[in-house]
Amino acid sequence: MKAADYMELALSLAKATVGQTSPNPSVGAVVVKDGRIVGMGSHLKPGEAHAEVIALEQAKDHAVDSTVYVTLEPCAHYGKTPPCARLLVEKQVKRVVIASVDPNPNVQGKGIQILEEAGIDVEVGLKENEALELNRFFFHYMHYKKPFVTLKAATTLDGKIATKTGDSKWITSKDARIDVHLDRAKHDAILVGSQTVKADDPQLTVREPAVGTSPIRIVLSTDLDFSFSERVFDHAAKTWLITTKHVSEQRIQTVPEHIEVIQLNTDTVEINAVLDVLGEGGIQSLYVEGGRMVHASFIKAKAFHRIQWYIAPKMLTGIDALTAVGGQSPEWMKEAIDLEFEDVEKIGPDLKITARQKKEA
Amino acid sequence: MKAADYMELALSLAKATVGQTSPNPSVGAVVVKDGRIVGMGSHLKPGEAHAEVIALEQAKDHAVDSTVYVTLEPCAHYGKTPPCARLLVEKQVKRVVIASVDPNPNVQGKGIQILEEAGIDVEVGLKENEALELNRFFFHYMHYKKPFVTLKAATTLDGKIATKTGDSKWITSKDARIDVHLDRAKHDAILVGSQTVKADDPQLTVREPAVGTSPIRIVLSTDLDFSFSERVFDHAAKTWLITTKHVSEQRIQTVPEHIEVIQLNTDTVEINAVLDVLGEGGIQSLYVEGGRMVHASFIKAKAFHRIQWYIAPKMLTGIDALTAVGGQSPEWMKEAIDLEFEDVEKIGPDLKITARQKKEA
Repeated sequence: MKAADYMELALSLAKATVGQTSPNPSVGAVVVKDGRIVGMGSHLKPGEAHAEVIALEQAKDHAVDSTVYVTLEPCAHYGKTPPCARLLVEKQVKRVVIASVDPNPNVQGKGIQILEEAGIDVEVGLKENEALELNRFFFHYMHYKKPFVTLKAATTLDGKIATKTGDSKWITSKDARIDVHLDRAKHDAILVGSQTVKADDPQLTVREPAVGTSPIRIVLSTDLDFSFSERVFDHAAKTWLITTKHVSEQRIQTVPEHIEVIQLNTDTVEINAVLDVLGEGGIQSLYVEGGRMVHASFIKAKAFHRIQWYIAPKMLTGIDALTAVGGQSPEWMKEAIDLEFEDVEKIGPDLKITARQKKEA
Repeated sequence: MKAADYMELALSLAKATVGQTSPNPSVGAVVVKDGRIVGMGSHLKPGEAHAEVIALEQAKDHAVDSTVYVTLEPCAHYGKTPPCARLLVEKQVKRVVIASVDPNPNVQGKGIQILEEAGIDVEVGLKENEALELNRFFFHYMHYKKPFVTLKAATTLDGKIATKTGDSKWITSKDARIDVHLDRAKHDAILVGSQTVKADDPQLTVREPAVGTSPIRIVLSTDLDFSFSERVFDHAAKTWLITTKHVSEQRIQTVPEHIEVIQLNTDTVEINAVLDVLGEGGIQSLYVEGGRMVHASFIKAKAFHRIQWYIAPKMLTGIDALTAVGGQSPEWMKEAIDLEFEDVEKIGPDLKITARQKKEA
């Protein structure tokens, strides 16, 4: 196998753990000695061993004079575990190949420095793009201290999300709905508006046959006007309720104890204020499921980094049918927000279109 | 080359002429003798030589004992040209390989019969699906005596076609707009409603840099309420104006002479009645460009065979923005018309989704 193949393997190990390592990034490591793999590992859970630790443990004495392929720069600080860069030195490895530098200010080059000072041969940047893509939530959060935002919607081919009576069951296939559960599991939090809670009463958890941990459920509400028998407030996952500074103390008293209430300093539920508090709460990635007003607010604020748009092979018809994005239309088509299509996938009979904001030329 | 390769070549010859042979099908022929191609040809224009005639002419004496690959069954009737089946017999070819039988009741097996009776070895069905696809308009028309209907729309990713002020310039890229011109050229006629004529004043011709003949322009109108300075009524292409039985003789007098007026026997512009008169007028393929009400009418009547839906990488937002398909929403999502996605293509920055009605299980 070539160096690129070993790194590809390390990336596969890392990829398998996306969604279960946050707030830590997903990392994979492969230890190679005399053309044989002598150790492999992924970081599996925050607080538990890092990828390098697992791989080096498996390698035992073979670690001496080995080459270690790791998807992210080895850590340099004493966190919940001792620094991996020191462990690599201690184990007397010969060479370390790193896909991407760690943007965490506690590391950022310091891991590489420790290795180089110990005389270890270091190479950085092999399959860097794949490594950045793999931990795009983590890298984004390290840079901006706000979550990476994915907007999700599902429409008929003619752009409708519900009939005039509000019926929306079902637009997409079971396959697409399972795909949504898998994507939920990859994010730290799922966000909906109060209208969606009232109209659709979604539980917003990750359910069979999609397997994964349920993210924190975020509900936006100006007035906390709920009965709290809504399913999003059950005990199946954590729920945070974000509201404005104007909501009365009395209202807040009606919220069950297991729900966390966050009051913004703003008069309305302002999207950038929401992202600030989520960032402070350590939310690295946010999956926004609507409804129409919430989608419109995120789009108007340009507060999104990716759109995942499912299109079902159906024609609903009707000017009175509901569409996915509400709010107010601009005057002119040229005011529309420009996107770029990243990918189109067939999920069962449906299409899943992935887009991002167009980069400024 | 193998037999399949020769037929592939014949299909390529035929494919290049789609849009210029109607009401005749597109046909290609290849003559092979002792492993060498000795003649090739396509039918280029109604009234002119058939593919077999051109290919056999080029082959001259090499036609004797040759194998002829032809995409459609050779004709058996004296039309504008003498029957090709007789010509093949006369030229003493040895073997004829045919992709698909001709559904035209004047031929339908009679061409094959003439060949077989003359002792020529006949094989039918090589690359039949490609041949049927190539002439899907022709085959559809021969079967139903009504045009094959393609619905075309272009929306933003959030399903909008215009802002609240009606501004729609431009949703899609120049590449996609050229693609529309190319698709127009493949159809016998383009259809729009009177609202589109008034709101957008489209010329509905095939223009540079897309090259091809402009189809007949069909305008639906209940009351003929036009100034006739609208561009669709210019002399750049033929225009047919379809109206109801109730329109006054006075109104009809206002229509310029070069416009053909067709009065339906119905009270409203009923889509199935429209397709009947277009079928009687020899229109084999119809490209429906909207607007919203026209699209809704075709969809409600299930009177379409293909949808070509362009999606631009844009988010417009707005419950007051316009969507592509108007009319009335049904009560329930399960009343939506089921489609199947056939294809997704990237055209410049845009997506072109091709769908058809879902076949009954």
